[in-house]
Amino acid sequence: MGSPEQGSGAERDIDDLPRNDANYTALTPLWFLERAAVVQPDRAAVVHGPVRYTWAETYRRCRRLASALAQRSIGPGSTVAMIAPNVPALYEAHFGVPMSGAVVNCVNIRLNAETIAFLLDHSVAEVVMVDQEFFTLAEESLKILAEKKKWSFRPPILVVIGDPTCDPKPLQYALGKGAIEYEDFLKTGNPEFNWKPPKDEWQSIALGYTSGTTSSPKGVVLHHRGAYLMALSVAMIWGVPEGAVYLWTLPMFHCNGWCYTWAMAAFCGTNICLRQVSTKAIYSGIVNQGVTHLCAAPVVFNNLINAPASETFLPLPRVVNIMVAGAAPTPSLLAALSVRGFRVTHTYGLSETYGPSTVCAWKPEWDRLPLEERTRLHCRQGVRYTAMEGLDVVDPKTMAPVPADGKSYGEIVMRGNSVMKGYLKNPKANAEAFAGGWYHSGDLAVKHPDGYIEVKDRMKDIIISGGENISTLEVEKVLYMHPAVLEASVVARADERWGESPCAFVTLKEGVDNSDEASVATDIMRFCRERMPGYWVPKSVVFGPLPKTATGKIKKHELRAKAKQLGPVKKSRM
Amino acid sequence: MGSPEQGSGAERDIDDLPRNDANYTALTPLWFLERAAVVQPDRAAVVHGPVRYTWAETYRRCRRLASALAQRSIGPGSTVAMIAPNVPALYEAHFGVPMSGAVVNCVNIRLNAETIAFLLDHSVAEVVMVDQEFFTLAEESLKILAEKKKWSFRPPILVVIGDPTCDPKPLQYALGKGAIEYEDFLKTGNPEFNWKPPKDEWQSIALGYTSGTTSSPKGVVLHHRGAYLMALSVAMIWGVPEGAVYLWTLPMFHCNGWCYTWAMAAFCGTNICLRQVSTKAIYSGIVNQGVTHLCAAPVVFNNLINAPASETFLPLPRVVNIMVAGAAPTPSLLAALSVRGFRVTHTYGLSETYGPSTVCAWKPEWDRLPLEERTRLHCRQGVRYTAMEGLDVVDPKTMAPVPADGKSYGEIVMRGNSVMKGYLKNPKANAEAFAGGWYHSGDLAVKHPDGYIEVKDRMKDIIISGGENISTLEVEKVLYMHPAVLEASVVARADERWGESPCAFVTLKEGVDNSDEASVATDIMRFCRERMPGYWVPKSVVFGPLPKTATGKIKKHELRAKAKQLGPVKKSRM
Repeated sequence: MGSPEQGSGAERDIDDLPRNDANYTALTPLWFLERAAVVQPDRAAVVHGPVRYTWAETYRRCRRLASALAQRSIGPGSTVAMIAPNVPALYEAHFGVPMSGAVVNCVNIRLNAETIAFLLDHSVAEVVMVDQEFFTLAEESLKILAEKKKWSFRPPILVVIGDPTCDPKPLQYALGKGAIEYEDFLKTGNPEFNWKPPKDEWQSIALGYTSGTTSSPKGVVLHHRGAYLMALSVAMIWGVPEGAVYLWTLPMFHCNGWCYTWAMAAFCGTNICLRQVSTKAIYSGIVNQGVTHLCAAPVVFNNLINAPASETFLPLPRVVNIMVAGAAPTPSLLAALSVRGFRVTHTYGLSETYGPSTVCAWKPEWDRLPLEERTRLHCRQGVRYTAMEGLDVVDPKTMAPVPADGKSYGEIVMRGNSVMKGYLKNPKANAEAFAGGWYHSGDLAVKHPDGYIEVKDRMKDIIISGGENISTLEVEKVLYMHPAVLEASVVARADERWGESPCAFVTLKEGVDNSDEASVATDIMRFCRERMPGYWVPKSVVFGPLPKTATGKIKKHELRAKAKQLGPVKKSRM
Repeated sequence: MGSPEQGSGAERDIDDLPRNDANYTALTPLWFLERAAVVQPDRAAVVHGPVRYTWAETYRRCRRLASALAQRSIGPGSTVAMIAPNVPALYEAHFGVPMSGAVVNCVNIRLNAETIAFLLDHSVAEVVMVDQEFFTLAEESLKILAEKKKWSFRPPILVVIGDPTCDPKPLQYALGKGAIEYEDFLKTGNPEFNWKPPKDEWQSIALGYTSGTTSSPKGVVLHHRGAYLMALSVAMIWGVPEGAVYLWTLPMFHCNGWCYTWAMAAFCGTNICLRQVSTKAIYSGIVNQGVTHLCAAPVVFNNLINAPASETFLPLPRVVNIMVAGAAPTPSLLAALSVRGFRVTHTYGLSETYGPSTVCAWKPEWDRLPLEERTRLHCRQGVRYTAMEGLDVVDPKTMAPVPADGKSYGEIVMRGNSVMKGYLKNPKANAEAFAGGWYHSGDLAVKHPDGYIEVKDRMKDIIISGGENISTLEVEKVLYMHPAVLEASVVARADERWGESPCAFVTLKEGVDNSDEASVATDIMRFCRERMPGYWVPKSVVFGPLPKTATGKIKKHELRAKAKQLGPVKKSRM
């Protein structure tokens, strides 16, 4: 063993080799685009109807965009707001905006003008790029903002994204209002723009707002380092091969398309854009465009398996890989997709973790199990991505891990390089989110003996009935097994006897006889009673369409408001 | 556009979100092992004959190793030298040693005692772990070192790695000399050892010495960050699926097994160890152990295709992926492997770049080309890995890129996160290696119009004949096409008329009639004259076995010495 002198001498020598220009550069997914343009210059990078850009063209277009922004003094510290469905410009913004040094903020296109005005103000958007279809929405937002800010309002640069596959009228309208067309904007930029990686890989690359169901939307800030690491991780987790063909069913504005925006450049794949998701469009992509991979929330796939035969193309011409997240898929959904030949990867995450960051990593030996058992294992949210270095289920107060018994509830907490930088201008929310050195997901889960976690509920969704926890997810799983149920969501309703009890909101399948709602409700309750503890059984069943967010999540807060309007379940009814 | 006040305000807000325990941790491949133990605890991680450790066991064994080292005050700044072939202990050292904070130095087992003594001294090795087969070599090295250092010599902790698949005598001998057995050493450690990632991901993880053919060996220092990034990159580049079965034909002491040591944990694969590489062992691994991937230098695969039928098992039971690097493969080799059903990935790199860091990324459209054309494309060293952010071919003096014309020679330079920290205690070599903000490879290459690079020669190997460059690789390619040639290597020989001219060293295939060497030499020269410019044709052909390094590289410096002994080619002979 060395003497202390030797030890410290060695330490200086072996570690005292500083960074230099040759051996260090900031991690950023922008490198992947530069590489794709060299490796696969002629391969289709972005396809949108008849529009097709190769990787070489995409790289040049993104540099044009960066250059056009830089010429207008947009750079580090600036925010560029994108209001668009999955069109090429939104994909290009994921590279072109950060190449200028600025931060890209992809706005959820289902938000109302009021909320968008809040976002543009909060993020100090200096540029707004808006798809022609959403121009009047942006216009209205800016009007609201101008009225609010009065003399201090500085109008952002307004760019309208025309779409040659659509009616040109909205574009004409926008141009008449003084917006610059996206292609014209690009033309002002240099396609050889000499972009630089950020000086510090901790520099922000993207901003995305949470839905803010109970408070103001919170701005989740992500950095170059995390985007780079997650792009590699999402490719690895899914086993995505070089040159995969990816269909954009998942909005890019949702956690930057779970980082597949950036990842596509890493494996030189082809992006198939999609203005509007439909079952027909998905099957058409699979059959006509060679789609191998797509992501979405369960609701999209729910539609896929319940679609009329005229809209489906089965059997599939090849294995199609589906990644599902955004809400826990039901066993019935997983089973139905599997039977149709889709290879489903179940993941879980939040905006705060760059999108999904846990995966139900599939084990080959599970292939031999009966469907029901496979599905039970598959419903679990699993283990951490390679880019997320810590994952546990803990008592949120003591931070003590729950036992891995598949029963004890705790909060999912995460830590590592794929946890957000923080919320923009919100120290209070940051202190809560990062309490105890972990990111608090707000999701309740159990940990199984094999180390896989399983989400049981949002902490705020859990129903406490007579002092007992009821997982609304567990109740919903059973409801989805009922042959008449298309969609179901369960929330707490005040209950005079038990404090709270489950209230089910249900959409019935097409063709179901719903002339006597009371009798359908009774049948559903009977169905539940046979499959769950008595106190889990919904005491009320309400029929009708379910309110959803842009990403297909059911808005439970609206259902809770409805349940509140119903008033408490009376004691006398028991 | 925002006012300056707005701009700077936004900049502060959007970037001023500091690192915390929840959203930042050092990048290190150690995370992959922790994850593999959760995701695939029961899968075989390391197999060596009858010995089989799961990922859960491997993780516990590595923590034991780290703990045992830490108890002996081995930690950050310490170096642990490993002298072993591809046995489980060498794999475990890649995780266990850095988990203690120390640096692992895997020593080439083909080195002599004198050189190993130099390495142990230069790296201040505080622990030496040596496989039983190499114990006397280590013993001799330490004796040399003790004599050199005299009173200042502090003997390192000496650990002997027993091998239950081998004769126990060398182990008994080592124990008699006071070495502690590796398994006993592990037993002193805690399998639950609470390892920590390094405080700074720039901390050194591994040290590896270059062969030092012309000067003292240079110690290449690698860091945790680079090892993490390369582990992901090597998996991505090769499209390695989760759970791949990897055969250790490539020595782990060679650039840490091109980072597949660490990568295997990232994709939870299975490591098949191999004490001694042979054609039989390779085919047996493929047929009996489900091997899907292996790496090696061309010489290993050369043996594979020239092996007698009794040692081969063809056709292959499945696609077997081969990664070749360490020297440029010849067209004949690539073609022969391809014909036998191996899927070959051709890569290129150096110890200073964590092993291979460029790849001849294959394009699906090339599959349709004739074999000869495919092979021509495949011989190129290609494009950068995702973890290497810069690659170019430049004039080494002006740093100006050469034109991408497939003709102009220049030096391969690289920059990015997979370039070494630097050489240990060698500021002069570092200044040269990193001159101009790029790492200088010392390899000459051309850049093709499609951006792929192609190595032409080591700068020091190039032959300058009558003022013209002759690529020894190009001459060798043709020699390998000759039906009687098993192996060939070309070096410069002094030439009275031309300054230098090519001298070929050739090993003939078994069964070739070599009773009249002069006539075989004449035939080879005639063969060359028909296929290359006259001044390229070797003026001398020398027969016999070729001297090789431990990794199968032909030792050109020894051949140059032999050529020198031959004296200059006489003018009169022309």
